[in-house]
Amino acid sequence: MGTGLVGASVAQAMTRAGVEVHLQDARYSHAVVAASRGAGTLTSLDPAAYQLVVVAVPPGALAAVIAEALDTYPNATVTDVGSVKGVVLAQLRATGVDLARYCGSHPMAGSQKDGPLTASPDLFVDRTWVITPHDTSAAQSVLVVRRLAEMCGARLVTMAAQHHDEAVGQVSHIPQLMSALVAGGLLDVPAEHLQLAGQGLRDVTRIAAGDPKLWRQIIAANSGALRVELEELHEDLGKLIAVLDDPDAVEAFLARGRRGTQALPGKHGSAPSAWAEVVIEIPDAPGALARLFTDIETAGVNVEDITIEHDPGRPVGMLGVHVEPAASGVLATAMTDRGWTVRT
Amino acid sequence: MGTGLVGASVAQAMTRAGVEVHLQDARYSHAVVAASRGAGTLTSLDPAAYQLVVVAVPPGALAAVIAEALDTYPNATVTDVGSVKGVVLAQLRATGVDLARYCGSHPMAGSQKDGPLTASPDLFVDRTWVITPHDTSAAQSVLVVRRLAEMCGARLVTMAAQHHDEAVGQVSHIPQLMSALVAGGLLDVPAEHLQLAGQGLRDVTRIAAGDPKLWRQIIAANSGALRVELEELHEDLGKLIAVLDDPDAVEAFLARGRRGTQALPGKHGSAPSAWAEVVIEIPDAPGALARLFTDIETAGVNVEDITIEHDPGRPVGMLGVHVEPAASGVLATAMTDRGWTVRT
Repeated sequence: MGTGLVGASVAQAMTRAGVEVHLQDARYSHAVVAASRGAGTLTSLDPAAYQLVVVAVPPGALAAVIAEALDTYPNATVTDVGSVKGVVLAQLRATGVDLARYCGSHPMAGSQKDGPLTASPDLFVDRTWVITPHDTSAAQSVLVVRRLAEMCGARLVTMAAQHHDEAVGQVSHIPQLMSALVAGGLLDVPAEHLQLAGQGLRDVTRIAAGDPKLWRQIIAANSGALRVELEELHEDLGKLIAVLDDPDAVEAFLARGRRGTQALPGKHGSAPSAWAEVVIEIPDAPGALARLFTDIETAGVNVEDITIEHDPGRPVGMLGVHVEPAASGVLATAMTDRGWTVRT
Repeated sequence: MGTGLVGASVAQAMTRAGVEVHLQDARYSHAVVAASRGAGTLTSLDPAAYQLVVVAVPPGALAAVIAEALDTYPNATVTDVGSVKGVVLAQLRATGVDLARYCGSHPMAGSQKDGPLTASPDLFVDRTWVITPHDTSAAQSVLVVRRLAEMCGARLVTMAAQHHDEAVGQVSHIPQLMSALVAGGLLDVPAEHLQLAGQGLRDVTRIAAGDPKLWRQIIAANSGALRVELEELHEDLGKLIAVLDDPDAVEAFLARGRRGTQALPGKHGSAPSAWAEVVIEIPDAPGALARLFTDIETAGVNVEDITIEHDPGRPVGMLGVHVEPAASGVLATAMTDRGWTVRT
């Protein structure tokens, strides 16, 4: 039920795995598009025949659609893919409906894109998929939802709903709000000043471009956990202002921030500091990137990650190539020999 | 004076332009390395023979070194490349030295890298270089500094020191502090929760990895302008907390943030929304990026920008290719035909 990016991707993955999938969407055209892209069929069965219902509708509609599905499909396990779990569970409990056949879940995938055209059966491959059973979930229903995540190729994590909401509040919703806070402040900055903006400001404010109508629902559903976090940040910001003229205290604040970045797991779960970076200038010429990557390949070095830096008004970008530390010298030499401007 | 990344790059650019450059650095080995890389010579002239002294030392040492240079080189214009201008000017005024031959400047380039090995004579090409004359700067000195920036290939902007500090506070120092605020909060987040972190949190906290010892000097030198901005953000954050349970007010806050991102000038000064994005999956296989860019080139489409998204534990990355809107369909079709998984 719901064939946007996430719903249609789940359906494509299940169809590919040989499961019979029936699509529904309040926007019928979305279901048609999803069906045309291999997500399933538009036909329907006897309601008693469904084994699993995946609810992939906007956050504000989750509880009502889940309750309706539990009522309509008497033998089906019902799950959802919402990004906040606690409020939905509380809303469901308030309806008095039997929740044994409900088990929440949250596949940590998606993007700023939306709609069935953006779906992919591989969207969840190696992504984290959080399962949030509650105290009255039937063991069989939890198993069905686990099997769903496994068939989509995801990495399973099990957490209580409240625990999940606290975690995504910290790593996703708080950054969203703080990015919006900084970005909103830019409206008071003269355009002449904004001309001096570099990559750092762009990085900090990038996610603030997300859809306010989607995010209002996520924030509303998790406001309890977020309030605690925001009050701590508010207090920390107040403390920073109080010590702004004490360089030692400011340095301690900055050093704490740096340690925080080091606490984040890197790609493939490795420590962020595990790779060495070789920085190569990218000329603003046709074919430059293709030649650059061809030469990197020719150097025989395995690329772990790449980053790009741009600045307005500057035609030359910088490509940061992250490699095993032992390989950085090899790469830098090979690229310099081929005429690239390299900084290690 | 000072042959780190910025000082050595200025020296390389001036040497290349045919100017005789003499290098000094408190760390003599840095001057030797810079000289070996075409930045100038280690010899010295009669102090009266110097026409221009460029002071490129750490922020905390600027005023003392500038004052000493004005005293030592009686005929030279003296400038600096510090990222904060007002405090240095005030410190210089407090010494009572005649400042007619001093004109501050701030080339907006550099990176997280440092040292003369990272220098490039092209570091400032098409970058913004802010000149900050003061009310007693001699016209001739301002002209000499303008000529310096022009010979380095930079785009000139002239601002009063206080105005400059307010601008870089807003677009550079405030994002740095807010990124550190969010990153510092991560130290209180359980490692299990951090496993759920995605690209958004990484973007918001990336610059918080910067050197606390450098940034303490920048913050200390601009604390006046920063205090005003931080107090506004502190107040805005308090207001957000107060309305956190009012979805309309939260949406207005988020919408304000989105408008802020739209106020930022894009690459080459164009509006950020001018390009269409074609998103292509990058398999984690040897040669994948080289093949991908070769196929993009073959499609005959001009790439304006690229972005990469990664998630921990997921071997497949997404490449966002930004092109003219009219070209996005051509690119998507061409890449799909060549077997790539494309989302438009």
